[in-house]
Amino acid sequence: MNGAEALIASAVRSGIGLCFANPGTTEMPMVLALDKVPGMRGVLCLHENVATGAADGYGRMAEKPAMCLLHLGPGLANGLTNLHNARRAATPILNVIGEHATWHLEADPLLATDIERIAGSVCSEVYRSRRASGIAGDVAQAIARTSAKGGRIATLIVPHDLQIADAGDAVATATPLAAPTFDTNNVKAAAAALKRGKSALHLGGMGLSEQGLTCAGRIAAATGADLICETFFARMERGAGLPAPARLPYFPDEALALTRPYDRILLAGARRPVAFFGYPDTPSYLTTEQQTVPLASAEDDVVGALSALADEVGAGDTFERVQGAPPDLPRGPLNATTVSHVIAALQPENAIVMDEALTVGVPYFAASAAAPRYTHLMLTGGAIGQGPGAATGAALACPDRKVINFQSDGCGAYSVQAFWTQARESLDVVTIIGSNRSYNILNVELLRAGIGRPGPIARSMAGLDKPFLDWVKIAEGFGVPSVAVDTAENLAREFERALAAKGPRLIEAIMV
Amino acid sequence: MNGAEALIASAVRSGIGLCFANPGTTEMPMVLALDKVPGMRGVLCLHENVATGAADGYGRMAEKPAMCLLHLGPGLANGLTNLHNARRAATPILNVIGEHATWHLEADPLLATDIERIAGSVCSEVYRSRRASGIAGDVAQAIARTSAKGGRIATLIVPHDLQIADAGDAVATATPLAAPTFDTNNVKAAAAALKRGKSALHLGGMGLSEQGLTCAGRIAAATGADLICETFFARMERGAGLPAPARLPYFPDEALALTRPYDRILLAGARRPVAFFGYPDTPSYLTTEQQTVPLASAEDDVVGALSALADEVGAGDTFERVQGAPPDLPRGPLNATTVSHVIAALQPENAIVMDEALTVGVPYFAASAAAPRYTHLMLTGGAIGQGPGAATGAALACPDRKVINFQSDGCGAYSVQAFWTQARESLDVVTIIGSNRSYNILNVELLRAGIGRPGPIARSMAGLDKPFLDWVKIAEGFGVPSVAVDTAENLAREFERALAAKGPRLIEAIMV
Repeated sequence: MNGAEALIASAVRSGIGLCFANPGTTEMPMVLALDKVPGMRGVLCLHENVATGAADGYGRMAEKPAMCLLHLGPGLANGLTNLHNARRAATPILNVIGEHATWHLEADPLLATDIERIAGSVCSEVYRSRRASGIAGDVAQAIARTSAKGGRIATLIVPHDLQIADAGDAVATATPLAAPTFDTNNVKAAAAALKRGKSALHLGGMGLSEQGLTCAGRIAAATGADLICETFFARMERGAGLPAPARLPYFPDEALALTRPYDRILLAGARRPVAFFGYPDTPSYLTTEQQTVPLASAEDDVVGALSALADEVGAGDTFERVQGAPPDLPRGPLNATTVSHVIAALQPENAIVMDEALTVGVPYFAASAAAPRYTHLMLTGGAIGQGPGAATGAALACPDRKVINFQSDGCGAYSVQAFWTQARESLDVVTIIGSNRSYNILNVELLRAGIGRPGPIARSMAGLDKPFLDWVKIAEGFGVPSVAVDTAENLAREFERALAAKGPRLIEAIMV
Repeated sequence: MNGAEALIASAVRSGIGLCFANPGTTEMPMVLALDKVPGMRGVLCLHENVATGAADGYGRMAEKPAMCLLHLGPGLANGLTNLHNARRAATPILNVIGEHATWHLEADPLLATDIERIAGSVCSEVYRSRRASGIAGDVAQAIARTSAKGGRIATLIVPHDLQIADAGDAVATATPLAAPTFDTNNVKAAAAALKRGKSALHLGGMGLSEQGLTCAGRIAAATGADLICETFFARMERGAGLPAPARLPYFPDEALALTRPYDRILLAGARRPVAFFGYPDTPSYLTTEQQTVPLASAEDDVVGALSALADEVGAGDTFERVQGAPPDLPRGPLNATTVSHVIAALQPENAIVMDEALTVGVPYFAASAAAPRYTHLMLTGGAIGQGPGAATGAALACPDRKVINFQSDGCGAYSVQAFWTQARESLDVVTIIGSNRSYNILNVELLRAGIGRPGPIARSMAGLDKPFLDWVKIAEGFGVPSVAVDTAENLAREFERALAAKGPRLIEAIMV
């Protein structure tokens, strides 16, 4: 085998079956190896941020890493912001980057960059292969790293000459690092805290899995504690039959109003909550130090910790499940509420909803609480343009589930290239664009800063109306059948049609 | 003034009149300052790589920096690859990045990243403001840096709390660093070298300006030296009345065939040429050390050095101007040759051609040699997706000149968001997409590597045909009137129409 074949064979043997790629000349031996070594599907993306966003969505749903094959430093740089989002979501991802031949780098060819420096901004570990016979071990080590505590994005840089050199016959298998654990002292301290005053469990990571939520619900039933979830959770199981945590509000004053009444807030898979931005006269942290009780971090065994805590407080098997029903279908013009209600009213059981709807989607969280069981994914790192790629990856991880990408227009415009991969791979993704024709969050922030009448330049910097984006044309240009609607009735009709069909569809919900 | 107003006022006083922006909450004080402080135009971009690409195109044509206003580390990361291209082109650019409030960073909010690390991969200098009253001086220092030798991209990070704090009344003006110089010893050595055997001048940077080319032509006339230009020059004045250097071929064997006959190759604004990729059994450098004679680097006073060399060799005023005429209009199906010939035959005097046509545009360089005078810009750093943004910036720098963006489809798909800014600002850009529906360079590279029949995965990784991109829909979705053609006659007709009109147009030249 050559080095590239050893790499692909070792990745396949280590359980990686999917490669999101936008390769160039320095990655071609690895592309050729995908044909030679069975077991790895190659999915071409038109932009690296679609590849990394797809790997994030895949990793969240498959609970194992996909590989991203990126072209040199610029390919990595193009995919950097969705790697940032994946880092905040603790998603496992393996990046493999072709590099110039070792002997060629000294001449500083045009595409040469400091790949380690760029990767270091988002990756816990960056490896560089030094000899062909070491590539199998290098990739196994990098894959093992994606299961590690303290960062789950690993990057391996493989020079072109090593890819094509003889690497022997050795194929390596990643040995997962020690399974995550939890601290029993934290469990005891948390149990004690639950007895002293009004408490809440702040849930994130695996604390929002079915098992985590069930344990949290049992603890709540036994102790009277409330359940809160992160504002921007990576993945949460939701809907009928599950507990329904309150979501921590985005703006710090509202978040503080939620947290203030509690004597103790236990962190289970969530960090101590921090305001998204620092506003004058507002604290960074949304809980006080006194309130904050660590139970388990996102990278600990959160379910184990919650289960132990349930035992410790003598919790029974019962817990409070979400009350109520999905909203009725609304009528009339489209706005954030009517769009959110149409989706929540019609989304089928077992759907995956990738939610990058921002201001357009504010009502959706509450509206969908009692929907049929579904999985809710969110933008986790604040770097916009995640939704279309992550929906693509989720659909590849779960081909039997319907993926709904509820998407704001400003964010969606970053990642329109994802529609092409959805069409190419016939993925079952329905995208609903909430088309308010603005970066509306900026208007909201200006109002909050007391600037009710910004000048013409500031107004124009929040406006997507001149010209407006024609999402039907854009998505059809990339191969996805699309339709625009401007009433709740028509949105419901087109959404039902799209749900009944197979393959990608886009609906532009025009809100102006 | 607050810190944001001091920044904008100092930038305006230092000569910066244009800001490409995709701001977020941490940049809003600077956006508001654009309304308060007159003199800076704000141009909104839907993606930061369009903003940085536009700043590159603007800087090359205006010969002064534009400002890019980017949102935190992710905004910078999204714009990184076109900053890489700008670095390779030695284009001056000022990046200004809003940062979280100083007191908020410690809490590691979701959007926090190591901005210095990301910026350091492409910027010569990264500055961070430490107090509001220092912002005026900080931005002046950063702007001065954009005129420096050794890197012309400067980045200033300004925390939000300093932007809104009182900064006093002081406005600062950038003091350009010492003007570039040249080494007279190099001139003498170059003159001596020109007397010893067969020589060529290898031109780049300002060596390809009208003045540079004129001096080089005079030297050639006096000494018998030949003229060669970089494969991927940043900007070259071309066409009737000017000398026509031979372009160094892309593939190293062809490049070596060109350089091998020379005893001496003088570098004037160009680096010692390096192969784009390292191929087995091929050297990195495309000239030998013995051949290579440094005259002036891209950041020296190249025109001064060439002028001094012309004097040193006793050159007269005459030089050989390009011979021949533009090609005749071709007929029949579209391919790289016919598309290139249509453009070269019809491009008007004083056009700016942004050429990211790659394999589709190979015949264009020769075909356009005797076109009416025009300015030729190329992808300089190999990070694809530069053309649409750079064409946008060139049109803003030169509103009275027609900009033609000759664009490959694979590269163009990276930066479709640029069409929206072209439409929004009514820019006079005609885009011609050479639509071969593949990453054709990968097929070429595979063939060269002896792989004539790659497997299905490798074939699919070079294919943009399933589904094909409908460029008319995509560009119209972003607001640019568009048309598709599949014969040379129709391309010529639509190109003439687009040239006769004002404002952005796109023509998809379907080649399959």
